[in-house]
Amino acid sequence: MTATNKKTGNITMSQISKAAGVSPSAVSALLNDRDYGIRISEKTRNRIMEACRELNYRPKNPATLARIYPAMGDICFLINSGVPGGAQHQYFGQMLSGAIASLSDPTAHIAYSLFDPQIDYLKQPESLPQSLRSGNVTKIIAASTPNTSLVQAILKRNLPFVYIGHHMDEAGLCSIVPDYAEATRQSVKYLNSLGHTRIAYLTGPFGNSTYNLLELQRGFVEGLRDCELPVSPQYIYHCDFDQGNFGQEQLIEATEHLISQKQRPTAIMCFHDTAATVVSSYLQSKGLKIPQDISIMGCNDEPAASTHHPALTTVHFPLAEMGAQAVKELENQILFGRPDKPVNIKLPVNIVERQSCGPCPELAGVL
Amino acid sequence: MTATNKKTGNITMSQISKAAGVSPSAVSALLNDRDYGIRISEKTRNRIMEACRELNYRPKNPATLARIYPAMGDICFLINSGVPGGAQHQYFGQMLSGAIASLSDPTAHIAYSLFDPQIDYLKQPESLPQSLRSGNVTKIIAASTPNTSLVQAILKRNLPFVYIGHHMDEAGLCSIVPDYAEATRQSVKYLNSLGHTRIAYLTGPFGNSTYNLLELQRGFVEGLRDCELPVSPQYIYHCDFDQGNFGQEQLIEATEHLISQKQRPTAIMCFHDTAATVVSSYLQSKGLKIPQDISIMGCNDEPAASTHHPALTTVHFPLAEMGAQAVKELENQILFGRPDKPVNIKLPVNIVERQSCGPCPELAGVL
Repeated sequence: MTATNKKTGNITMSQISKAAGVSPSAVSALLNDRDYGIRISEKTRNRIMEACRELNYRPKNPATLARIYPAMGDICFLINSGVPGGAQHQYFGQMLSGAIASLSDPTAHIAYSLFDPQIDYLKQPESLPQSLRSGNVTKIIAASTPNTSLVQAILKRNLPFVYIGHHMDEAGLCSIVPDYAEATRQSVKYLNSLGHTRIAYLTGPFGNSTYNLLELQRGFVEGLRDCELPVSPQYIYHCDFDQGNFGQEQLIEATEHLISQKQRPTAIMCFHDTAATVVSSYLQSKGLKIPQDISIMGCNDEPAASTHHPALTTVHFPLAEMGAQAVKELENQILFGRPDKPVNIKLPVNIVERQSCGPCPELAGVL
Repeated sequence: MTATNKKTGNITMSQISKAAGVSPSAVSALLNDRDYGIRISEKTRNRIMEACRELNYRPKNPATLARIYPAMGDICFLINSGVPGGAQHQYFGQMLSGAIASLSDPTAHIAYSLFDPQIDYLKQPESLPQSLRSGNVTKIIAASTPNTSLVQAILKRNLPFVYIGHHMDEAGLCSIVPDYAEATRQSVKYLNSLGHTRIAYLTGPFGNSTYNLLELQRGFVEGLRDCELPVSPQYIYHCDFDQGNFGQEQLIEATEHLISQKQRPTAIMCFHDTAATVVSSYLQSKGLKIPQDISIMGCNDEPAASTHHPALTTVHFPLAEMGAQAVKELENQILFGRPDKPVNIKLPVNIVERQSCGPCPELAGVL
């Protein structure tokens, strides 16, 4: 231990140790150690922090300061380093923008950092984001496909933490997501209200069990049930969206497959707008008119949805609002602590009607 | 002055003051003061920092540490808070992603922060991004429409600094930009090689003098001259792209104006891809075929360009590479200091041929 922090703002280590009723070595270990969660009991830790706050102890080291007064630490926004380029960035960019716009101090920053999808962060805590290890960051927002060991390592550090766009059943974890299941459920009902009964669904890779994909699939099936329609496996197609160029070739294969069915679907729902624009462009290049010949529905309301020809009917996901609400939730956790149980806040989604969905062509022909 | 930093790693303030040949009060003022650039001469400052490095002085306070060893400080990525939503975010998101992917330490973060387009940062240094004031940040990358007072305030602090996407004639400022003028110049030449002579240009707001718009305009005019074509004012239209919904209504007005000319243009160049997708969609909704009836050319190669129908021919801007090169340039400045004169590094751009540009319809008719 060095002399730093021994005496700051006229408060000495021995004053803190007396006030907390713990040994001076515990105080100095806690205030200088980087992995404090491991060596000192939670109870002792809380007692020392409480004493520091009561004495209004203000160390110069921002990391120590943030440990005592978590509200003063930075927010870190963590993204999976495996996120593919293009459309995906804009998705997280909207969340990040929503978060930064909602900071009460407009001159504050958010530490933007990546996590590795493969590393076991419980076994390799030295690979955790540097800002987290140094302690300057005291509040964490994570997004994109989770690495469970990262989530557990952060929870272990007992810091305010919100996951956006994904949910996991981890005690203490709060997640904020768009109501994925409602998005597909409402889409099916909307298309059915236009007379469609043969509704195809282009979804993500087969065997993938990420929260958002499963929820979207669940909503699709529930929507069909609500409309008393069967689940027809020939109208469901799994695409690997993590492939380069947004999996464009797979999407074209998928579209070929769907329109070559004996009874071809009259509407195709896509799991995101980028996929929908590829499907729509390909069908048009084959001479089909959208929505006169076939309806195409997107999901998540990317900027490109409104400028695509014809403009995509889609479901709006409140991405910026998710970022802003995550910041609010972090402030709440600073004041009231983290939840004991997993909490999943679902934000409402809504259908944005544009030009890519129309009446079922067979019905239109009958009329 | 507090006791913090008085003695760290067995190095005392008085040792530093002796080694630097300056008063101990100057040493403590420099190492503890937040606005060190103002009160202590550059020469004294350098002498003290040099002495700290020679003695291998390692203060616990990260801000002080970063002042002595700038390589240890964080990178801050600054964006104008007035940047409109949607396509623009993705533009900067690509730069940010390029920068973070190029960090030598994958666990490091980039402090993402906003600046205000209106504040005079020279008069109000207290409004500077908090990370800059605290000194944790020692390297700055800025992007989007500049606030000159911010640029000058950062230059005054003598920190490694790179502006990407814009250039300003400020001594000590290094900028990294796509070769904007070459983008439009090559576009005109490409369209002319397809037989087009009536080439319209949709550009940004009239009277706007930001670097990128002026360069794009200069390149357009140079391209026409290279092809021995006249500059026809009726084919130039100014759009206010900062308006909501990407200025969609103005773009439609612009398109109406251009196609209602007595001799309508056979090709329309747009100052960015989002504008091009709006123009293309609108013309198709009016029954025109692209590129058979009219060619549409985008600029900057957004993800939506490749999924638009028909896929946009455009100019690729190396946004991620700009972010990565900015990080390299910051490291260079740490080692060799900032440039004395303004430096503008132009990265090459290249035309991406897709389906939205074809032979001039009049020539096609002749053949």
